[in-house]
Amino acid sequence: MSVNQLSETNQVSEMIEWLASFGKTKTGGVTRRLYTPEWQAAQHALKAKMKETGLETYFDSVGNLYGRVQGTEKSGAILTGSHIDTVTEGGKYDGAYGVIAGFIAVSRLLRKYGPPKKTIETASLCEEEGSRFPITFWGSKNICGLYHFHDADGIQDENGILLSDAMKRAGFGPGKYISPARTDIRAFLELHIEQGMVLEQNNKTIGVATHIVGQRRYTIRLKGESNHAGTTPMALRKDAVTAAAQFISYLTRKAKETDPGLVATVGQIDVKPNVANVIAGEVAFSLDIRHHRQEVMEHYCNDVFSTFKRNAKKKGIHISITQWLDTAPVALDPALAEIARSIAKSRQIAFQDIVSGAGHDAQIFGSFCPTLLLFVPSRNGISHSPREYSAIRDLETGIDLLESVLYKLAYT
Amino acid sequence: MSVNQLSETNQVSEMIEWLASFGKTKTGGVTRRLYTPEWQAAQHALKAKMKETGLETYFDSVGNLYGRVQGTEKSGAILTGSHIDTVTEGGKYDGAYGVIAGFIAVSRLLRKYGPPKKTIETASLCEEEGSRFPITFWGSKNICGLYHFHDADGIQDENGILLSDAMKRAGFGPGKYISPARTDIRAFLELHIEQGMVLEQNNKTIGVATHIVGQRRYTIRLKGESNHAGTTPMALRKDAVTAAAQFISYLTRKAKETDPGLVATVGQIDVKPNVANVIAGEVAFSLDIRHHRQEVMEHYCNDVFSTFKRNAKKKGIHISITQWLDTAPVALDPALAEIARSIAKSRQIAFQDIVSGAGHDAQIFGSFCPTLLLFVPSRNGISHSPREYSAIRDLETGIDLLESVLYKLAYT
Repeated sequence: MSVNQLSETNQVSEMIEWLASFGKTKTGGVTRRLYTPEWQAAQHALKAKMKETGLETYFDSVGNLYGRVQGTEKSGAILTGSHIDTVTEGGKYDGAYGVIAGFIAVSRLLRKYGPPKKTIETASLCEEEGSRFPITFWGSKNICGLYHFHDADGIQDENGILLSDAMKRAGFGPGKYISPARTDIRAFLELHIEQGMVLEQNNKTIGVATHIVGQRRYTIRLKGESNHAGTTPMALRKDAVTAAAQFISYLTRKAKETDPGLVATVGQIDVKPNVANVIAGEVAFSLDIRHHRQEVMEHYCNDVFSTFKRNAKKKGIHISITQWLDTAPVALDPALAEIARSIAKSRQIAFQDIVSGAGHDAQIFGSFCPTLLLFVPSRNGISHSPREYSAIRDLETGIDLLESVLYKLAYT
Repeated sequence: MSVNQLSETNQVSEMIEWLASFGKTKTGGVTRRLYTPEWQAAQHALKAKMKETGLETYFDSVGNLYGRVQGTEKSGAILTGSHIDTVTEGGKYDGAYGVIAGFIAVSRLLRKYGPPKKTIETASLCEEEGSRFPITFWGSKNICGLYHFHDADGIQDENGILLSDAMKRAGFGPGKYISPARTDIRAFLELHIEQGMVLEQNNKTIGVATHIVGQRRYTIRLKGESNHAGTTPMALRKDAVTAAAQFISYLTRKAKETDPGLVATVGQIDVKPNVANVIAGEVAFSLDIRHHRQEVMEHYCNDVFSTFKRNAKKKGIHISITQWLDTAPVALDPALAEIARSIAKSRQIAFQDIVSGAGHDAQIFGSFCPTLLLFVPSRNGISHSPREYSAIRDLETGIDLLESVLYKLAYT
């Protein structure tokens, strides 16, 4: 390892710890929610660091931060980055890694090669997680024209603070800086931790995302008859728990049979009255379904829901199925993915194609401009937790690859 | 219907409403918990009514109320009655019916036939439900010598009031009246609402209980791995909800296969973290098992728990099974049951043998003296609810039968 490489490895490691210091919690996690003092401090500190490195820095009016290197040719901008906000008690890598990776890659390119042909910008997007306000992708959706200031109307956090007020108190809001909506972005590149264990299980350093899954979320409510657990024979019961258990077993088995890429999760169950010696009259459970092809989800939902309804009827149980989230799958740009693959191959980096099971800013950009999403492994697949961790050598390999893709796009 | 019968029918109907007026709630239910002002008022009003009818009345020191008709022969007492306390927002019939039935039957016998050969007592037992203090059968267990005053030590209600203090404030406690423990009871007869729908479904007016079921209650805790619902393929999951669903389906199916009298209920499920887009790491669920034969419960538990353990191991899920209730089945007295059956037959009352799936004071007396437990139908099986209801003609038939059994035991 050369002296130069050693110092670069230290750079990513140091920046991860430095950025985690804004909002660090007692447990070693990070809580850095939109427009909070920790969030503000992080954005301003990043701006100073970008400026110091020779980037042209600016905010937009919702608080997205950019570091720009003007290209010598007249062209749109190649944008890289990720989000600066975290979940409550999140880790040091989710979002932060992409912000740091963009900054390091662009800084290195500028230092090594000077101004590019095509303009490059690295971004620290203001919000993706929805961890403070019940709205997600506030940064990327404002950039892509999918949200405007008025979409914040009436949205408040758990303390009743309005998104619009929090934005103003943090120094942002309509007219404060340039409008967030952009029309000049020719590509978006995001580097992120996988937040799953596929790469780790397959011993790969890089995942090249081909798609981001679509997501459907439902609440299934079953209404049977609450009754005495001792005096009601099994044959006379309309037990909502028993029905729910059978439905959950069925949907799990069916998901496994349908497609290896399909995931179906029941994460939430609420039972009424939820007392040991009373047969439950009501159960509500959530169902989260994800796949990168609409028709697979459609086929699965049709089968599962018609089976539920048929069986509920047989049992004398009333069923209602309510959908409350419906996100279409996003196909990422094949040409950008192929550039990433060919560089990885030439560098003998162990990589694989992967479908992203989680949402990312790249999902919003994916329908807006050619988009590349690269993953590095997450130890044990753990994320949204203080135990989130990715190996420094993997983080560095990701940054090297990002730098090379940017070089290819902006300098050649 | 003779004028006499009409007036007697009015008597039970009026007494049900009269007793329900002590602790009546806005919803039309009854809340009359141990030693509360409503409870005190009810016991004292009953005592006055018993006295008025010519019974010799007395309390014991825990607050059980008796109305006695001294027999002409030297003998122990034949006791009938039930409990005066209710659950919170309970109905008008649970417990109250047995108290009223005992009073009416004994009053009628005294009026019609004068003093019996064998002493009869009718009782309003102070507590059975455990609805105020975390202790049940405070009345019957004190009578049968299974509880003593010191068993109340440290037991408090949800407001931190000690059972012993509440007892004293209500005018009871050690030395206030005679000791509750008795050795002179030769039989106990209890009339109760079924609290199930077996009699109603079978169009029967009377159920002659042969057994009271044993009860076992468990908490089953499953610990898998909480993970991201999008990025964790089905094959890599250790999903506690999926495991719980399979176990609940299995235990339900197995209960139906094992014995028609066996009931197994999962009434409570608690999921962690209980979030729609997170695979649940932990699930705890309750299991309530009842049957009137220990060996049936034993066989069932062995099968179910070994299946759980085997399957949990396969899934990489940690399982712990904790038992927190274990009540043995009680066989009621065959000779008393046969007397009830033969009278019912001669009167052309539609009756059937039945196993009590709920606990009753008769369960405590059952191991102490020959005990008879008779049921009348509950509409839709509903109990512990303001909607609890039994038809007046069924209540009256029950009282007639009780009167005849008492006559047979005490006058012949």
